[in-house]
Amino acid sequence: MAAWGERLAGVRGVLLDISGVLYDSGEGGGRPIAGSVEAVARLKRSGLKVRFCTNESQKSRGRLVGELRRLGFDVSEAEVTAPPPAACRLLQERGLRPHLLVHDEVRSEFDQIDTSNPNCVVIADAGEHFSYRNMNRAFQVLMGLADPVLISLGKGRYYKETSGLMLDVGGYMKALEYACGVEAEVVGKPSPEFFRSALRELGVEAHQAQRRAPSRSEG
Amino acid sequence: MAAWGERLAGVRGVLLDISGVLYDSGEGGGRPIAGSVEAVARLKRSGLKVRFCTNESQKSRGRLVGELRRLGFDVSEAEVTAPPPAACRLLQERGLRPHLLVHDEVRSEFDQIDTSNPNCVVIADAGEHFSYRNMNRAFQVLMGLADPVLISLGKGRYYKETSGLMLDVGGYMKALEYACGVEAEVVGKPSPEFFRSALRELGVEAHQAQRRAPSRSEG
Repeated sequence: MAAWGERLAGVRGVLLDISGVLYDSGEGGGRPIAGSVEAVARLKRSGLKVRFCTNESQKSRGRLVGELRRLGFDVSEAEVTAPPPAACRLLQERGLRPHLLVHDEVRSEFDQIDTSNPNCVVIADAGEHFSYRNMNRAFQVLMGLADPVLISLGKGRYYKETSGLMLDVGGYMKALEYACGVEAEVVGKPSPEFFRSALRELGVEAHQAQRRAPSRSEG
Repeated sequence: MAAWGERLAGVRGVLLDISGVLYDSGEGGGRPIAGSVEAVARLKRSGLKVRFCTNESQKSRGRLVGELRRLGFDVSEAEVTAPPPAACRLLQERGLRPHLLVHDEVRSEFDQIDTSNPNCVVIADAGEHFSYRNMNRAFQVLMGLADPVLISLGKGRYYKETSGLMLDVGGYMKALEYACGVEAEVVGKPSPEFFRSALRELGVEAHQAQRRAPSRSEG
């Protein structure tokens, strides 16, 4: 492995994924991945700009940051780029009123959004809320629209919890795509716009940034 | 529309779909589609061979036939080709032991199948049983196999109940395909082998048969 200095030549900022990179989530707040608490601290000491870029859409940023801090990570809410705020911007720009198929934990992130008389569906990692009834309701909303719009917060295949692998939002996005004959718009990784917005918040150009992400599970 | 005699020139047998063609299922046993009870009776009086070919996998053939008879249809269990028996033959031929993600109603159709230590997943229209927990369990079984096999009883997008459109198994099949990176084997329509087995049971050749199926919802 190349030396620290050599690997970071020309780099001014680092985007770090969270789940599966810094920690594995799960019961009791999850557990850090070996070496990751110290790695974040070292990056910050080095003077590099650091930003956390996650598709986490099952819990609010506040709760996520709280869990990370309890595990020893030096991170604040303002340093996290996550899909819900990006989705809210998109909804407002396009006058979209979503039917939300999301975890209760993140519903509050959409408090400022008009959800009456929906003209689109927003789907996120809803976990246990991915019941047949809830999926069918989202399906029926889409089928009732002349121009169905499906927005998905990420399209991950699965993620790892301390208890094992867990289905992520991507499969459920595919289910609705297939049933309704639509193609989802993805907000979050791997959308280039999502990374660009994280870089803008970091204040560096793409060629000056390093990204650290898990290797397998993202679509 | 061509006359009855002209339309059926050279035809010796007819395959009829059930849901969406003969009746719309739903609370209280569903309701027949206008003209369909008389159409079946007329086909049978005409001397044509008639067979019912359905992807219904949320209820047993016995219950399905009971519902149809109560609605006035002249149909017996022996006249129905449905995916579970075809799936059982396939499982036995290949030594596959399924993890079943199916409706409780059809579980009994797999009574003769060894389901210990599963080496494949069989998915059917499970309705309310498509919970996150059950989907995740099927996903974990597949991810634990060196050579994952996913068998889907049909791949319909949706079907119509008296209360509205309902998600069918196809979307959930797509979800598992995407999450696990596998391609499902479909038992049931539109698999050619499924139609061939219905024709064998009918005793006619493919060029001597007419098929009547819904136009939109099947994948």
